[in-house]
Parts: sequence; structure tokens; C-alpha cells
Amino acid sequence: MRKIIQPATAAWADLVQRPTKNLEELEPGILETFQLVKEQGDNALLQLAEKYDGVQLQSLLATEEEIAAAESKVPQELKEAILQAYSNIQLFHTQQAEPVKQVETMTGVSCWRKSVAIDKVGLYIPGGTAPLFSTLLMLGVPARIAGCKDVILCTPPAKDGSIHPAILYTASLLGVTRIVKAGGAQAVAAMAFGTESVPAVYKIFGPGNQYVTVAKQLVSKAGVAIDLPAGPSEVLVIADESANPAFVAADLLSQAEHGADSQVVLLTTSESVLEKVEQELNVQLEVLPRKDFAAKALENSLGIVLGSKQEMLDFSNLYAPEHLILSVSDFEELMDGITNAGSVFLGHFSPESAGDYASGTNHTLPTNSYARAYSGVSLDSFVKKITFQYITREGLQNIGQTIETMAEAEGLEAHKNAVSIRLKELNRV
Amino acid sequence: MRKIIQPATAAWADLVQRPTKNLEELEPGILETFQLVKEQGDNALLQLAEKYDGVQLQSLLATEEEIAAAESKVPQELKEAILQAYSNIQLFHTQQAEPVKQVETMTGVSCWRKSVAIDKVGLYIPGGTAPLFSTLLMLGVPARIAGCKDVILCTPPAKDGSIHPAILYTASLLGVTRIVKAGGAQAVAAMAFGTESVPAVYKIFGPGNQYVTVAKQLVSKAGVAIDLPAGPSEVLVIADESANPAFVAADLLSQAEHGADSQVVLLTTSESVLEKVEQELNVQLEVLPRKDFAAKALENSLGIVLGSKQEMLDFSNLYAPEHLILSVSDFEELMDGITNAGSVFLGHFSPESAGDYASGTNHTLPTNSYARAYSGVSLDSFVKKITFQYITREGLQNIGQTIETMAEAEGLEAHKNAVSIRLKELNRV
Repeated sequence: MRKIIQPATAAWADLVQRPTKNLEELEPGILETFQLVKEQGDNALLQLAEKYDGVQLQSLLATEEEIAAAESKVPQELKEAILQAYSNIQLFHTQQAEPVKQVETMTGVSCWRKSVAIDKVGLYIPGGTAPLFSTLLMLGVPARIAGCKDVILCTPPAKDGSIHPAILYTASLLGVTRIVKAGGAQAVAAMAFGTESVPAVYKIFGPGNQYVTVAKQLVSKAGVAIDLPAGPSEVLVIADESANPAFVAADLLSQAEHGADSQVVLLTTSESVLEKVEQELNVQLEVLPRKDFAAKALENSLGIVLGSKQEMLDFSNLYAPEHLILSVSDFEELMDGITNAGSVFLGHFSPESAGDYASGTNHTLPTNSYARAYSGVSLDSFVKKITFQYITREGLQNIGQTIETMAEAEGLEAHKNAVSIRLKELNRV
Repeated sequence: MRKIIQPATAAWADLVQRPTKNLEELEPGILETFQLVKEQGDNALLQLAEKYDGVQLQSLLATEEEIAAAESKVPQELKEAILQAYSNIQLFHTQQAEPVKQVETMTGVSCWRKSVAIDKVGLYIPGGTAPLFSTLLMLGVPARIAGCKDVILCTPPAKDGSIHPAILYTASLLGVTRIVKAGGAQAVAAMAFGTESVPAVYKIFGPGNQYVTVAKQLVSKAGVAIDLPAGPSEVLVIADESANPAFVAADLLSQAEHGADSQVVLLTTSESVLEKVEQELNVQLEVLPRKDFAAKALENSLGIVLGSKQEMLDFSNLYAPEHLILSVSDFEELMDGITNAGSVFLGHFSPESAGDYASGTNHTLPTNSYARAYSGVSLDSFVKKITFQYITREGLQNIGQTIETMAEAEGLEAHKNAVSIRLKELNRV
């Protein structure tokens, strides 16, 4: 951990910079994959599963038998945990539904907006040793609340062609429409362009490696929406004298273990807190299974002593962290000043991992300072808000001249005429 | 207008395709402009104003004197119209504010989300003969309701260095922070990267020519958010026997006059309605000042006779029009079936131009079938929704095991430990 004591404000802009990775060199290869999937559909997915996942698949789609068998393979305790998390996420995201509110802006001029599900969505869940069923919950629950008709899951198969039982179990709970054994850029291509087995979707969600990241960027240029621009995960902790250094260290490590490129920042007004947290980091790091990742991430991370609470808040707002933990006694005082953050954890007993799994908030959040302008995934991400308006004869008589005057001033005579021709008819009758 | 009678469903996918334009060839030139602006800041903007706008600017920013002088140059009638539109847009967008709702997902586990303004936003308003003060209202009103601190307006100057008085007047009403005389890709670069006079913003809004479109795409890859992917404007009208052919023709023309690449579609179950609308199009077209644009747009447009109301709805949902007008007597019956559209106009007296200017709904909407997954601009576009959570000691005891079980199953031991270390402390006390 890089320690910085009282950096000058002028140095902050550099301190909040994340390391950038140029992934453009991956684009040509990914565009080739896209072409193959467009031309050969399912057959391309089967070829690429053999090439990249080392498996000859019998079927691209998980079968009902596989899904049914998964249920018995998931330990009871894990099922209960998944159901509890599901319930909490459902409760929180259901409250995000926006009721239709009709507004009469002038007599006879009524406007409202209505949330309508995105018909077809695709969820990508990475493979590997850690089965990210928690991410599947975070995407699948709001998709279900929204009422998306087609919910396609793509996830790479293991070498034996299987998908982790916890993923299949969670997908089945969520009523996912199709479970496709496909990973990488080819999975993104299949969801964006469609194949015989995979319907083309309108929006693609989910994390992934750099191939998936670039593939999502490329399809978004081609008109398929994506959830969020991707970046390494990150946490910023603001700690005062009341903070428990062991808790703070545990929170920093829970972010650091994600990967060597994770970003971890500690802000405090107390050098002694910083020192104690560092000691705890060393102790706790030793026993972690993902110690190598965490140690690498810590090398690039920052421990900064600042002069006041306001400075910590200002620095944090400039950094715009994905996760922000206020390990302070008086979080109520600070929380209203937060302008840029993905998700905020208040007080000493709200660890980030609560939000990662089960408290109810979403864990798909803006990284890389995108929290300055982007929100995390929510029910909003699975709907469009369509506006409606109904104008009565009287309404048009009330608003008509305003429209005519503005259209004329903008030189758009046909816009004006669409009103004038109606007003003429109304005055004639 | 291309007339198609009862096309087979299999042909629909082709009919809803918009002509695509490959703008990639513009990228190298725009990246050069970006580089110039990054290196030379204001000076680059001054050079490029001379090169592209043909003007040697005294000052990049509109002065207080210019802004004050504008007020007297705007006719009283237009001022009143702008104020009426402002009031309606304000009323409708204010209702979009989301109250903070705290949800206790389990005892002691409280979650909520809060809308927080994007600090710095940039609005681009194109120049040319038509001063798009209506677009400035559509972007500036929600920015103001949201509480954005810095609202930067970029718009290209006329050859005499001036900005249209209606733009200055509207910007002043809206409390725009800075009015910058810059257009094209250089304006986008200035707002994305910052110059001496233009603070870098976090999100850029507004329409523009193809240079602006590509520049927005490129800065969005670099982490600056943008409002919506761009495309030519479009309207789809569903008309039954009750429709007034002259009204329908006027609505189609008010879209067609935007430009030669505008998309105009008429769906009806009645060949006779189609014929009467065509006759009206010919009559009304003749007297339009923007006749040439409109005539070109009509050449590419579609008049389709379908077999039933349901077919019209299905086609429209597949097309996903930016604007959808239901020129039918029983719009209540159809409107619940709309799944993809930007903004919907109901009945015979709700012309699209009402929404373009003054009814209160936003006119910055998804084109090019993006309405399948995107919403138009709204108050949401100017805020982030930050989630918060507060977990009490009791709450952590209630939810702790769920988190531990899930973290362990995902192989993320440090995530588990952030909970375990706290539970241990609670049990010790």
C-alpha cells in the first residue's frame, strides 16, 4: 500500500487516476469471432467451445435433465442462502418500480410515462473456478421483476461440458428462458446477432474477461445496449478514530482478492489508523487462499492521510468509487455530501460483502470513476420508460399557438402546419 | 412513398431496417481534432472557429453584454411561447423525481437509493439557420431540476461571431453556467477533456451533425457518458378509418422536413386511407419551405397496409419508432400493447410537434430502433441513483450467515472474512 500523507489538492487529480489498459489490439480477433458466429451460428459456438473451453458439446443448451439434476447437487445451506439473498434483492428492486403518474401540464394536455420491460435480454456469467451465481441473482431478479420475456443466460461450460450446479439452480429459480453453454466474445456475438439456438437480444448484461469487455463495447457500437462500461472492481474506505482496523483491513482485502488489478483506497485523518490497518492487512493477508491476487492489488493501492472530514469527502467524490464504506461514527454527517459513488456502506457493521451478496442492493456498479455519471444496475436497467401524451381538442386550442410560434422561429413550417391544420378544423366546426 | 400491401410477416425484419451509414472514415480526422484540443485548449477552439465557422472570435465565451442584449432581440410572442413550453416541460420532468424510499429487507438491514445530480454536464446545440432553442429547453430544464452544478452549452457561432438571440435568451433563463462559441468535434472534445475556458464535464447531451455524432461516440469510449446513440429522426403513424388524412399527412411531413434521411412510416388497415394520405402529402408538400428535404425523405418512406390492428401493433413494436402516433378512434385499446417506442401521441389531436416543443414530454428520444432498449432523455439522464445501506449489529447477525455461505461457495474467502471478523467481535462482546 502506497502511503501518502497530506497530499496537496493539486496532486489529487493524478491520485484518482486508474491505470488504463488499451484493449484495442483485441478488436480484430473479436471481429473475426463475430463474423464466424454471424455466418455459422450454432456451429461456430460449438467449434469455439472446443477451441477455447476444450469441450465437444452434445448440446449448446443446458437440458431439463441437467437443470433438474443440479438441484440435488447444491447443498441445502447454500440453497437457503441463495433464497434469502433472492428475497432481499427482490424486495429492494421491487420498490424501484415507478408508478404511472399522469400530469396535466395545461388543461387538456396530459403526459405520463410508463415503464415497459425490455423484451429480450442477455446475461453473461463468467466461468472458471468461482461460479458467480450472485451476479446471476443481481441481473436475473430485476429482469424478472421488469417482466422481460426472453432472458438468455450465456456461461462457458467446464471441460466436461457441465455448468456449475449453483448457476443452474439459480437460473432455474429465476425462470431464465435459455441457458447457453457459450463463453467469451462468441457468447456476446450470439446474444447480439442471434443463432439458431440463441435469440438476438436488445441488451446485454454481465461481467467478463477482457474479450467479453471488448465484445460488449463493439456490439454496443452496433446498436445493442449494454449495462455499463467495464473496469476493475474497487473500494474506497473512509475511516476515523472509531474505526476497527481489523474490520477496515478485511473490507480492503475483500476487494483486493478480486484480482491483481482491483483498486483499494483508504482515506483517514489519522496516521495511527493507517498504520494499524496496514498491520492488520499483513496479518489477514497471510491466511487468504487468494493471497497472490490480493497482495498484487495492495501494491497498487493507496492509503492517504487527509486533513479533515471535508477533505476526505472531496477526495472520495473526485475518485467516484464503485464501493464507498464510511467506517466512521457519524456517518449521517458525511453521507449527505456524497455526490459520486456506486453504492455506499454506512458505519462499522455494513461490510461491502453484504451488498455483494445479500442485503438487497445491486452489486453491478460503475467502476473507473464512471460513478460520476452512471448509476449501477437496477430495475431501471431492464425497462424503457416510454412517454405518452393525449391532447384533447380543448388542449390543442390551449397549447396550439405556443407550438406554432416556436416551430416558426425554428424554421420548421411543417411542424407548425401539423398544429395549424388541426386548429383550422376545430375553428371550422 | 413506397407502398406495400399486406407484406408477409417474414418480410417485416427487412422492412424495419434503417439505412445504415458507416461513419468510421471520419474517426481519424476527429481524433486529430481531439489531439489539437487536448494540446492547445482554447487556442485550438479559436483556430477551428476560424477554419470551420469562418469567424475570428474575440472571446470564446458569450459575454454578459451579449446575453443581456439578446433579450431585447427576441420577439415578445416567442418569449411567451418559450416560457409556456419551459413551464410545461418543468412540470412534467419534476414529476420524474424519485423520492428516497428506505426498505428494510431484513430486520436491521436497511437499503435505499438516492438521486444525485451529475455535477458537470455539457449540452451541444447545433448552429445553422434553425436555432434549436427547443432542444436547449429539453436538456436544460431537467439539468436544472436535477441540480447539476456546471451546465456548459456549446454551440457554433455565426460568421459574425454571434449566437442566435433565442438560444442566448433560453440559456439565460435556464441558468446555463457558460456559453461557449464552439461547434463540431472540437466542442465535444472541449467538453470531454476540458480547456482553459471549458471545464471537462461528465456527460454530454445533444444532437449534431455526423462529426458531432462520431465525436460523442469516441469520447464515450474514453469514459465520458453521452445521452443516446444518434440516428436520423423518425415517426410511425398508425391510422384507421377515423383518421383525418390531412392531419396524418401533416404529421408525416413534420418528420420528413427534418432531413433527407428522416424515416416516415404509415401503417393502416385501409388502402383507401393510404391513398387519401398520399394525395394530401402531395398537396401539402408543395407549399413547404423545406420541400426538398421532405420530398427526399418521403422517397425512402413506407406506406404499409396490414391485416389487423394487432398486426399494426406488432409491426410497430418490431420497428420501435422514435415517435409513434395512434391516429385511431380507440387508442386506449392499442396503447397497452405498445412495447417499443420513444414517445407516443394518442388520438387525432396530439400531433408530434406538440411533444417536439411544448406539451412537456422530452423530444430527445431513441431513434434507429434503439427504443427496444433505450429510453428518451428525462430527469433520470441528469442524475445517478446511488444506493446506500446501513446494517445494525442485529442486522449483521441476521444476514451474516447468508453472506458467509455464498462467499465461500464462490471461493471468495476475504469476502466471507469481512463478515466473520465482525460476527466474532459481536459474539465476544
